[in-house]
Amino acid sequence: MTKPSVDLTIVGSIGIDTIETPTEKQEEILGGSVSYACAAASFFTHTGMVGVVGTDFPEEFKQTWKNMSIDLEGLQTVEGKTFRWSGVYEENMDNRRTLSTELNVFETFSPELPEDYREAPYLFLGNIHPALQLHVLEQVRDPKFILIDTMDLWINIDKEDLAKVIGKCHMLTLNESEAQLFTGELSLNNAAKQLLELGPEYVLIKKGGNGSMLFTKDDIFLLHAYPLDSFKDPTGAGDTFAGGLMGALAASGKTDKESIRQAMVYGSIIASFGVEEFSLERLKQLGRDEIEARVSEFKEMCRI
Amino acid sequence: MTKPSVDLTIVGSIGIDTIETPTEKQEEILGGSVSYACAAASFFTHTGMVGVVGTDFPEEFKQTWKNMSIDLEGLQTVEGKTFRWSGVYEENMDNRRTLSTELNVFETFSPELPEDYREAPYLFLGNIHPALQLHVLEQVRDPKFILIDTMDLWINIDKEDLAKVIGKCHMLTLNESEAQLFTGELSLNNAAKQLLELGPEYVLIKKGGNGSMLFTKDDIFLLHAYPLDSFKDPTGAGDTFAGGLMGALAASGKTDKESIRQAMVYGSIIASFGVEEFSLERLKQLGRDEIEARVSEFKEMCRI
Repeated sequence: MTKPSVDLTIVGSIGIDTIETPTEKQEEILGGSVSYACAAASFFTHTGMVGVVGTDFPEEFKQTWKNMSIDLEGLQTVEGKTFRWSGVYEENMDNRRTLSTELNVFETFSPELPEDYREAPYLFLGNIHPALQLHVLEQVRDPKFILIDTMDLWINIDKEDLAKVIGKCHMLTLNESEAQLFTGELSLNNAAKQLLELGPEYVLIKKGGNGSMLFTKDDIFLLHAYPLDSFKDPTGAGDTFAGGLMGALAASGKTDKESIRQAMVYGSIIASFGVEEFSLERLKQLGRDEIEARVSEFKEMCRI
Repeated sequence: MTKPSVDLTIVGSIGIDTIETPTEKQEEILGGSVSYACAAASFFTHTGMVGVVGTDFPEEFKQTWKNMSIDLEGLQTVEGKTFRWSGVYEENMDNRRTLSTELNVFETFSPELPEDYREAPYLFLGNIHPALQLHVLEQVRDPKFILIDTMDLWINIDKEDLAKVIGKCHMLTLNESEAQLFTGELSLNNAAKQLLELGPEYVLIKKGGNGSMLFTKDDIFLLHAYPLDSFKDPTGAGDTFAGGLMGALAASGKTDKESIRQAMVYGSIIASFGVEEFSLERLKQLGRDEIEARVSEFKEMCRI
């Protein structure tokens, strides 16, 4: 039996996180953008992970990914310690403070794609240094659809490379505050207009619990967040959203606006499950029937 | 010719406002909850205003209302000065600070409804002291639908009367922060559950530029705000939204959930026009065709 080819390649960070919320603290749990994104995408499509871990990385965490049928051929294991991050969320869960960051093996990470990942029609460049995102683009063979994520750090220290790599992608995703930081525009409409000029066909601005907005040169699509009674840990919600979106889009085999709208709904719903527990605890026991039920309920909530 | 009967009665404050935003300052302009709400409702239905002004109140402001076909039989003119308010908006327009409040004739205001206002099937109790809202309810004859608005001040100083009057209304509307203040719940879902226990069938939580949420015991309706490129003055946006909602609902003659969803869309769109200029400057030159065009565009933005 030959290994099925990968439909979606996702590149990003893998971390061991320690997270404190107003009610709970969890230490040394599985985190990182590519972990959240691959977990979300795995509900919909065959997904390959590109990232790096140290020799201290728990086998149990790898098993979590394997149980979700995530392809790990692109996972590098390097002598040393895995990237670690710790942070604390304030009272209303809106703001988080980083307590410590240890890059460890992530410091010298260079993403190298296995042969069949290079052919994958969908690619998600998770949040890593823009130079590394460019390095990935040099390896792939004309994917149908590329989504790129970033963060305030790269906007502050390497806007030039970032603008260059954004220009080579179909869709850019970033947070409300990052869109404002990048462009100096308070209005998200105006920020999106500037970002579209860098080249991508789509700009997806995430607003956390207030949903998201998808901009093209011609129109805007508005999406709510599913209203949860409560949630435990918002870490990785944006990566889960984007990963779910790309997984659902890859499963559709399409790249048109309507398919993107539907894929965003799935991404948003997967993210709403993800934040119900820390790390991948909720996603690893989530069923496709639960996803479909919440998607239906959500669509009814949004119907006008 | 007999005067047409009023379909919607709105009670609230009338003020002469001085407003400063990061880019502009406007002095002594027409404001107040009942002014914004009646202006919005007047696009859809025959609306009667209940409020008070002083003998200094400019005839020009009354003319603005008359031009919008607002019924002014319930407007009291009392010897003295009109209520005045001044405030300043901070950089991102999210926070506003009150600089001064002069109650003047509003201090001794007692809303008295003309005979045909008492028969109106729709009633909007704008934000005034809960005891005055109760006084209005003693005068009306079993309206089909009553909406009540309030503010943090009454939650802080007279929660008991406020809870009592809310219990006699069909729908309560308040801001996100007010819902949290009233209930001590950060989660809006949980806050809404508590507020529904006071008696109203609907709780409408406003989130400014992030839209609004309508809660019943059984379900939630999520509504976006129309995404503006820019706006000049958010003062009265909540009153405009609620007034437009009640005007559209009164025009439909219905009170069911579907009709309320549609009415909320109209309220939200009217509010999006309102904030484009200070005071009623945009609304007084707004055409029904512009409203319908934006409603269509908005529905397409929200379609999933």
